[in-house]
Amino acid sequence: MGDASVIIYVVPAVAVAALVYAMVRAAWVKRQDAGNERMQMIGSWVADGAMAFLSREYRTLAIFVVAVAVLLGFSNAQVGGETNAFIALSFVLGAFCSSLAGFFGMKTATLANVRTAAAARTGLNTALQVAFAGGSVMGLSVVGLALLGLGGLLLAYTQMYPDSLVNETAMMLVLNILSGFSLGASSIALFARVGGGIFTKAADVGADLVGKVEAGIPEDHPLNPATIADNVGDNVGDVAGMGADLFESYVGAIIASMILGVAWFTGLDSGGAGNGMNAVFLPLVVAVIGAVASIIGFFFVQTEEGGDPQHGLNKGMFVSGGIMMAGAIAAIYYFIPQEVVVKDILSGEVATYGWIGVSLAVVSGLVAGIVVGMITEWYTACERKPVESIIQASRTGHATTIIQGVAVGMNSTTLPVLVIGAAILSSYYCAGFYGIAMAALGMLSTLGIQLATDAYGPIADNAGGIAEMSQLGREVRARTDKLDAVGNTTAAIGKGFAIGSAALTALSLTAAFLTKMGGKVDIDAADPVVLVGLLIGCMLPFRFSAMAMVAVGNAAQDMIQEVRRQFREIPELRPALDAAKRAESEERDPNPEEAALIAAADGKAEYAHCVEIATTAAIKQMVAPGLMAVLVPIIVGVVSVHMLGGLLVGVTISGVCLAIFQANSGGAWDNAKKQTKDEGHGKWGDEYEEMHKATVTGDTVGDPFKDTSGPSINILIKLISVVAMIIAPVLYAIHFGDEADAGGSTGEASIQPPAASATAE
Amino acid sequence: MGDASVIIYVVPAVAVAALVYAMVRAAWVKRQDAGNERMQMIGSWVADGAMAFLSREYRTLAIFVVAVAVLLGFSNAQVGGETNAFIALSFVLGAFCSSLAGFFGMKTATLANVRTAAAARTGLNTALQVAFAGGSVMGLSVVGLALLGLGGLLLAYTQMYPDSLVNETAMMLVLNILSGFSLGASSIALFARVGGGIFTKAADVGADLVGKVEAGIPEDHPLNPATIADNVGDNVGDVAGMGADLFESYVGAIIASMILGVAWFTGLDSGGAGNGMNAVFLPLVVAVIGAVASIIGFFFVQTEEGGDPQHGLNKGMFVSGGIMMAGAIAAIYYFIPQEVVVKDILSGEVATYGWIGVSLAVVSGLVAGIVVGMITEWYTACERKPVESIIQASRTGHATTIIQGVAVGMNSTTLPVLVIGAAILSSYYCAGFYGIAMAALGMLSTLGIQLATDAYGPIADNAGGIAEMSQLGREVRARTDKLDAVGNTTAAIGKGFAIGSAALTALSLTAAFLTKMGGKVDIDAADPVVLVGLLIGCMLPFRFSAMAMVAVGNAAQDMIQEVRRQFREIPELRPALDAAKRAESEERDPNPEEAALIAAADGKAEYAHCVEIATTAAIKQMVAPGLMAVLVPIIVGVVSVHMLGGLLVGVTISGVCLAIFQANSGGAWDNAKKQTKDEGHGKWGDEYEEMHKATVTGDTVGDPFKDTSGPSINILIKLISVVAMIIAPVLYAIHFGDEADAGGSTGEASIQPPAASATAE
Repeated sequence: MGDASVIIYVVPAVAVAALVYAMVRAAWVKRQDAGNERMQMIGSWVADGAMAFLSREYRTLAIFVVAVAVLLGFSNAQVGGETNAFIALSFVLGAFCSSLAGFFGMKTATLANVRTAAAARTGLNTALQVAFAGGSVMGLSVVGLALLGLGGLLLAYTQMYPDSLVNETAMMLVLNILSGFSLGASSIALFARVGGGIFTKAADVGADLVGKVEAGIPEDHPLNPATIADNVGDNVGDVAGMGADLFESYVGAIIASMILGVAWFTGLDSGGAGNGMNAVFLPLVVAVIGAVASIIGFFFVQTEEGGDPQHGLNKGMFVSGGIMMAGAIAAIYYFIPQEVVVKDILSGEVATYGWIGVSLAVVSGLVAGIVVGMITEWYTACERKPVESIIQASRTGHATTIIQGVAVGMNSTTLPVLVIGAAILSSYYCAGFYGIAMAALGMLSTLGIQLATDAYGPIADNAGGIAEMSQLGREVRARTDKLDAVGNTTAAIGKGFAIGSAALTALSLTAAFLTKMGGKVDIDAADPVVLVGLLIGCMLPFRFSAMAMVAVGNAAQDMIQEVRRQFREIPELRPALDAAKRAESEERDPNPEEAALIAAADGKAEYAHCVEIATTAAIKQMVAPGLMAVLVPIIVGVVSVHMLGGLLVGVTISGVCLAIFQANSGGAWDNAKKQTKDEGHGKWGDEYEEMHKATVTGDTVGDPFKDTSGPSINILIKLISVVAMIIAPVLYAIHFGDEADAGGSTGEASIQPPAASATAE
Repeated sequence: MGDASVIIYVVPAVAVAALVYAMVRAAWVKRQDAGNERMQMIGSWVADGAMAFLSREYRTLAIFVVAVAVLLGFSNAQVGGETNAFIALSFVLGAFCSSLAGFFGMKTATLANVRTAAAARTGLNTALQVAFAGGSVMGLSVVGLALLGLGGLLLAYTQMYPDSLVNETAMMLVLNILSGFSLGASSIALFARVGGGIFTKAADVGADLVGKVEAGIPEDHPLNPATIADNVGDNVGDVAGMGADLFESYVGAIIASMILGVAWFTGLDSGGAGNGMNAVFLPLVVAVIGAVASIIGFFFVQTEEGGDPQHGLNKGMFVSGGIMMAGAIAAIYYFIPQEVVVKDILSGEVATYGWIGVSLAVVSGLVAGIVVGMITEWYTACERKPVESIIQASRTGHATTIIQGVAVGMNSTTLPVLVIGAAILSSYYCAGFYGIAMAALGMLSTLGIQLATDAYGPIADNAGGIAEMSQLGREVRARTDKLDAVGNTTAAIGKGFAIGSAALTALSLTAAFLTKMGGKVDIDAADPVVLVGLLIGCMLPFRFSAMAMVAVGNAAQDMIQEVRRQFREIPELRPALDAAKRAESEERDPNPEEAALIAAADGKAEYAHCVEIATTAAIKQMVAPGLMAVLVPIIVGVVSVHMLGGLLVGVTISGVCLAIFQANSGGAWDNAKKQTKDEGHGKWGDEYEEMHKATVTGDTVGDPFKDTSGPSINILIKLISVVAMIIAPVLYAIHFGDEADAGGSTGEASIQPPAASATAE
């Protein structure tokens, strides 16, 4: 058996390599043709808007980060000695790395979108290459910065505590301090997702409602003042938001599996392997293999003119997945012996696992992620039964469209829940709680290429918008539409991965929380205190969704009023709008007279003002839901740790269902609108007009579902678990401080009679 | 201390008295003036349609009841000896009593609606009296038949097992057999709620969409062929459905608290009270006191011309509540000593409770029910912030109306969950799991008057419809509208009670299930098998809601096509519709020329055909969701009892949240539409037309939320727990049959290490 501790030095090296390669790719993107002057101007508006939002957001978050860091450092120093205050350093670095990854990724995405539009003038593959390169910078930045931060801190802390490489208690202390990195990442993720989600949907709803529905002009039309804000939104919501989301999942899965790996120490140490820490370092090994596999996969993303870009993306994904799988199994075989006797940290039971079990756990996670993704796709793709059912329902109006879409989303919870349940049971059976965490990591280890594919979507979408605004003609728009359509499918699959990994990560973090509480927290659902915790936890995602939706609604109202004001007050816009509407309703390009009216209004719309309004609204509205997510676990934990345990489980199970429901309802409405539009009058005749209106309503309702509240729930459930895990030593001191041993250690598991705790509260 | 066992003889006597009084009230209603010939004709159409639906539904359910009875009798005879087969008798009687209560209640409701309309021609109080008398027959029938069935069976079974009055094991056997009554009631309730809910909303959506939105004629207009079906729907959905729902909650709460009361036997027997069974019989005592209190309350329901009928209803409710409370506390003081040492059946812990604790538990249930009701009212009432926010959102169209309504509903989950959580903790703290069950009973004991108030709503609504169809003039309609508006508020409060009591009853039933499993089922959420059960349970209400919505959608499509067909094919309808629309849009009565066109079409619409279509669709569509609710706990239970334990908790916590969300979103949309319409052009000017359309869309989406899927979830969570409780002995035999003692007994609580079970599966 090998000694996995060498990975401590490999991680930073691979991280730096990934970041260097990200820079190479970014430089390549920058060198591409940025199109004509008009395109460059539009591109720079979008880029400036996105950067303005990001810097406003980061400045607001800086206050939060400093405040939390001080609290964290102080409270941990009180409870666990001065060195514990390093948790504050980890936290700040986690927040910083996540922010930096978002910044790099978005910077490149906003360079890539205009260049993709320019490349689409010449061919499909070149456009794909530019868009995908843009996305891959995001993927590489996230993976690189996550590994650099984690790896660097781990290197430093293991130097500080040399004991930690051979002693489980010292390692637990190191991981405890290290887990601040995860909290930093989660905090940024929540605010980035919520803030970005509010921005993008406020702009989208505003642009669609006043532009498409009221004024009757096409999407992304330059006469619409909210168009630039809409494109900025795609970047800040889908690129930066998704990046921060998966950054935290990735980091959370790694840290949770390292913590749960400590339980294997004794078994590995005594079982002849000789390297007690191998299970702790294995997650890093798998992460490194996944990062390398992702980079290799990049080279397989190709397509040809007239081909289907989806095949190119699929090939890259499958190559990466295959390499990761083979590499991971080899590494597990090398580092984990055939039989390890592990004492379950929570139940105190003894079980025998081995390299086969750990490998199967990793594989089961990857398979579950793919299957959930495929299910998601089925429920949301055009020309499948669920979307067709919404289109049918649209024939009887707005209300039936909404009801059917809600039903599709709720229906779609069943299969993913069963698949995730199967993954939980099989990975637990194979390798205990460590197995569940490794399954989450199995889903996330090829994050580099997954995220590249995810971020590719909004870049292609933006390229289409820029092509439309720059009036590049219908064949260019057709190419970008083709790229964008693929993006929607991969986005659906990406969402499946995000939800599946969030569930497993949250459960792993919950197990880590219980572990850090030294087995003193029993979460028997027959204990009314735990039950009430479950009930409150179950309710939180509803409350959180509502807050996010109201926030979008408030921000969208500001936007709608602003667009209407501009339509009313800018004299050139009204006649131009009427001309554009006439051309659109007759499905033709504007005639010379109309074109002249439209040209006269060109550039009159005050785009920057709309971006400004969306920014202000998003920053203001993200505070309440963000604070709720951070404060609730702290308050409940102080009241009762048993209730907090129940709350963690409740928020996870209900969050998974609600996130799937919202994501899939939104996705299905979106594609129902697209398919109806494609089929048009040809298929639906006179009915088309009303159907189109109804499906646009569905899409507009679905927007905050799928892009704000739904994906934010993924982060909510992880953040709440991370907060619980981080404050575990403090809670231990509060609730069990007067008992014998010190907190935060992997103490003996002592199962308490369930009801005793109820009356003890 | 008294001996509560005498209640066995009192219960049937009080039940018979309640039923006799119900007949007296029904006869009084029947004697009232039924109005002119046209009104009588319309009234008889509605009554015939409702009866036709009910008899079709009952005939379909008869097959299900016979099949389940055979299975139940056979499997229980196999497992627990031949006498256990009596559970099938209990089941059949439970189904029969519930059906009969629905039949009586609806028969009277359909008599009362037309007589309420007739009475509204002379005055407000007379109309209120007739409507309330109609509702009170429903309340009395439900309470009377529930107590008669339960009491009669208990009398018979205690005669069969005379030991049961002094021996806890024998009593447990009796209660086990008796609990079939609860399953029968639950099964009928689910199908009645789902089937009735589908009928009412299919008719409502069909009538509204084609009538109000497409043709532009007022609600309940005689030209609309779906109008009669819509009125029939109010009866079968709101009267019979709500009655069956609360019948099962009432029965479930009584039986669960009796089972959980067995645990008190030893403590009462040895503690000097001398009557070990007092805790078992106390629930019946409280139920009898509540029934008497309800009847007394009836006499306080009065109003005067120009007064607010709400005050009359409130007075009745408060008088009943006060009497019940005083009586219950007196009874508890009489039957339960100051200190009882009780060994918790699940945890094995010993705790000391007493009459004060039990009294407080009952009070906490009642208070929680009222508070949840008040919160529900706040979120759904006109001129409150949530409804106002939806009206504001309607200014920007359909989509924002929907988003805001969803947000209101999701937001509204927070406070009720906290109140229910507080009720759980306080009642558990006061009297253990028995306390939780007694809290549920505290909410439900004055069911007689609550249900009378609930059933009053649809009667008043129907009276309005009949007044409209009979063209009784605007002042009569104004009176029925006033009665109806009150009905909406009380319906909101009734829904709060229904949800709160469902949650507590389901938890009590879950505790009863665990008790019947002899403490062998541990539901530690840190056990992955339990966790997966929780996750699946959490998902079920989503799936179930989707099935119910799709069912409504399918049925509504049939209805819409039929109404459109009639508008197209019946030659007199089109010109009459146009005339009615003109008059409506100018907000005046039709002029002579228009009136002539409308009169020419009178009676041409084929109402019966619409009723027929809604009936067929509802019966067909109720099967799938109904079977799912029955089969899932059985399948999961056979796979793993630990997973089933998790599932019971998961379905309860997620069901509560989803039910509150759906009920309150629906209620808020409904009132947003009403308020917008009342404020009209006067407040909103040109905006009104679009706002009205948007709020009608909201209301139409909310219809299945609040009247089909939402309330059905209440039954789902109880039914699944009842099924689990009923099959507990069979599951015990399957999973622990080869172990020492026989199943279904109150064995020693043995807490198992949580993870052991996971690997054992």
